[in-house]
Amino acid sequence: MKGSQLRPREDLDLPVRFARSAAATEGSGMRTDDVSGWIAERATAAEFSVERIPFAELDGWRFEKDTGNLVHRSGRFFTVEGLRVRRDAAAVPEWHQPIIRQHEVGILGILAKEFDGVLHFLMQAKMEPGNPRPIQLSPTVQATRSNYTRAHRGARVKYLEYFREPERHGRVLADVLQSEHGSWFLRKRNRNMIVEVFGDVPLLGDFRWLTLGQIGELLHRDNLVNMDARTVLACAPVGRGTALAAHSDADLLSWFTAERSGHEVSAEPVPLSAVPGWVRRESAIEHEDGRYFRVVAVAVRAGSREVTCWTQPLFEPCGEGVIAMFARRIGGVPHVLVHARVEGGFVDGVELGPTVQYMPANYAHLAAGDRPLFVDLALSPDPERVLYQAMLSEEGGRFRNTESRYTVIEVDESQVPDRPPSGYRWVTPGQLGSLVRHPHYVNVQARTLLACFNTRAVRW
Amino acid sequence: MKGSQLRPREDLDLPVRFARSAAATEGSGMRTDDVSGWIAERATAAEFSVERIPFAELDGWRFEKDTGNLVHRSGRFFTVEGLRVRRDAAAVPEWHQPIIRQHEVGILGILAKEFDGVLHFLMQAKMEPGNPRPIQLSPTVQATRSNYTRAHRGARVKYLEYFREPERHGRVLADVLQSEHGSWFLRKRNRNMIVEVFGDVPLLGDFRWLTLGQIGELLHRDNLVNMDARTVLACAPVGRGTALAAHSDADLLSWFTAERSGHEVSAEPVPLSAVPGWVRRESAIEHEDGRYFRVVAVAVRAGSREVTCWTQPLFEPCGEGVIAMFARRIGGVPHVLVHARVEGGFVDGVELGPTVQYMPANYAHLAAGDRPLFVDLALSPDPERVLYQAMLSEEGGRFRNTESRYTVIEVDESQVPDRPPSGYRWVTPGQLGSLVRHPHYVNVQARTLLACFNTRAVRW
Repeated sequence: MKGSQLRPREDLDLPVRFARSAAATEGSGMRTDDVSGWIAERATAAEFSVERIPFAELDGWRFEKDTGNLVHRSGRFFTVEGLRVRRDAAAVPEWHQPIIRQHEVGILGILAKEFDGVLHFLMQAKMEPGNPRPIQLSPTVQATRSNYTRAHRGARVKYLEYFREPERHGRVLADVLQSEHGSWFLRKRNRNMIVEVFGDVPLLGDFRWLTLGQIGELLHRDNLVNMDARTVLACAPVGRGTALAAHSDADLLSWFTAERSGHEVSAEPVPLSAVPGWVRRESAIEHEDGRYFRVVAVAVRAGSREVTCWTQPLFEPCGEGVIAMFARRIGGVPHVLVHARVEGGFVDGVELGPTVQYMPANYAHLAAGDRPLFVDLALSPDPERVLYQAMLSEEGGRFRNTESRYTVIEVDESQVPDRPPSGYRWVTPGQLGSLVRHPHYVNVQARTLLACFNTRAVRW
Repeated sequence: MKGSQLRPREDLDLPVRFARSAAATEGSGMRTDDVSGWIAERATAAEFSVERIPFAELDGWRFEKDTGNLVHRSGRFFTVEGLRVRRDAAAVPEWHQPIIRQHEVGILGILAKEFDGVLHFLMQAKMEPGNPRPIQLSPTVQATRSNYTRAHRGARVKYLEYFREPERHGRVLADVLQSEHGSWFLRKRNRNMIVEVFGDVPLLGDFRWLTLGQIGELLHRDNLVNMDARTVLACAPVGRGTALAAHSDADLLSWFTAERSGHEVSAEPVPLSAVPGWVRRESAIEHEDGRYFRVVAVAVRAGSREVTCWTQPLFEPCGEGVIAMFARRIGGVPHVLVHARVEGGFVDGVELGPTVQYMPANYAHLAAGDRPLFVDLALSPDPERVLYQAMLSEEGGRFRNTESRYTVIEVDESQVPDRPPSGYRWVTPGQLGSLVRHPHYVNVQARTLLACFNTRAVRW
């Protein structure tokens, strides 16, 4: 490092370069309007099929004798176990549920490269068995450690080397561990990476270079950009945004710390067979009232994946989700309303979610007063004030048919004041962007909507 | 918020104000040289005594029948349980040990107030039963939730209201959850707070206003500034420091993410009676080889605490610790060498520790090659290159006689190059300061040494 031993702590050009890419709704590669057709064509070429099967037909998976946990014979991939969650001073102080445990940290990585002075991102047309639209636009690499150490003896993960040894090929623009669905995963974290490459990169068949603006356009199509792409794009270093906000960063962090300190959450694994209220049937583990979600099994045949045939369990929710982020200008500066949420599987109890994160079917048996705050506004917004709307699905490698209506809805002071109810806070997208550089602040649903801001899918 | 709905995200004056306080080696209150005498005088006045007792004489504490866990009858305070730690691809892939579990989040809070244009901090002369020097300089408030909700029916915690409702009295300067000793606590977090007050504050007998510079002077005295004060001062918003560093912030975060991803650590509570290699005797639970630490019980009598007499368990290490941070100028800019450490009780597996964190007695039976890196240099540094040195103890409310020699040692490129071994990294104190605004990056031993930089106890 002689002579040039020091470098700037922050690359001040990066936000400008990301802004330029977000402003580019066409790029040097495929036209935006052609992406859907390309994805459809890959789907036809791949000739895959996904079928529900009874648990007895799972290959390599079994229910452990003592615990009833659903495990793979390799001891890898993931397990389905039971979870007991206890909360101090909460409306529901204790509950049990099945949960996915996956110790290993996967890589969700997007390669970035400049073409004609504009950053492009290498996106993959990738099949996931649980997706309602099975091939979606995905990160360059989306692999668990079991995948990339080839526990399933499949093909090599393409472009993996750029993320295993980024300094050999370019430089890291973002790299942070983030949680995923705290209701379905116990302490799951994935590595969200963006790596800029300076040299040539071979372009393989299932991959295309797109600008941030193109991806922003595509985020308006239903079930096209997958969850893994969205969470990585949420972590893009787009800059701090405005220097002014309703709350200083110190006050925001203090509020978050108070929320996290105020919820004593204890989440402990228990044997799956010891989870009260849940029943194991031939083809599903489900709640006795048919609510929440079920654990199912599928058989997959596909030409485009690392192995051509496999079986696996998936979690399937019992209904569509409603995910809404409220937005308001405060003193002229755009803010969004985040909610400090407890989910049993979070690494540290509380993370910031969207304003509303809600599955109507789970509340159908309850009085209206027991529903989360702001649900009515989220369910029937004034169409003219909907800044963003699309049906999007969650990770199709673990979840089946998890469609949610994601929206960003503009509200006014009469609907949500500057000082919202306890547990809610107005923050700027720039403040969320500062938090998302660090683990376990922003949950995966809020990250999807942050990606919509970063890519300018939300124009405001 | 009308009219002034917006505020700056960062208060750019704060680093200047902290620097001014750090430069002030005398303040408006007690003279620095009088603090030791005042502490000694409080010790005499308090008339306390601490005695080892057999477990059978613990009042309110018992060993649970089924598990052998040591618990309090109220179900509060803390428990001593067993822990099984498993690590992938580590020299020691699995071990068992006793561990302290304490779900509730305590408050460690220091009040700040300007006198004559200089920030002063309200420090307390507080007794903790495990301290080798039982009264030490402590934060304004140092209380578990059991304390301040008065589970032990003692007196009110003084100044607590400033930290429960800071916005009524002033403003929050720092507020972040931090881990404590990952070898002795399972997923323990405490809230580290600094609150600036604008109005008058009544000055109670056990409290004094001191500048940051005065506290820096006092950090050179053995066992005078307690651990809780040190961890809070580590979180002081002293500013980002230099704009240049050996690694950009993005590279530093990426290295940390890789370290955390590379260590698959699973830590699960087990019954204390099922911990192999540990023996419960009349007055101690100890390792069969007499190594590591022991669990003991003490009886305390004191006039100055909320209750005048109590008994409790404490953890006692089997030897003195050696904690060293190496320091080097790189390109003229001061850097320190941090180590990405796995400790079984960390919330998220890995945190940054000092260069060396080591208890010689635990390694006495091993070959020299099995000792941690850099130990020789830490044990016998060139005295002229010792930038800081003091004997300091850890939290005396849970630990007994935990003395460590804390040092900051200047090294040169021949001793540690710009690219140190895997698991180590040169960072600026400013970069550590940016990380410590967020939970679970910097461990409690490294925070002690960061406090020495923040208070200018390290002059360099």
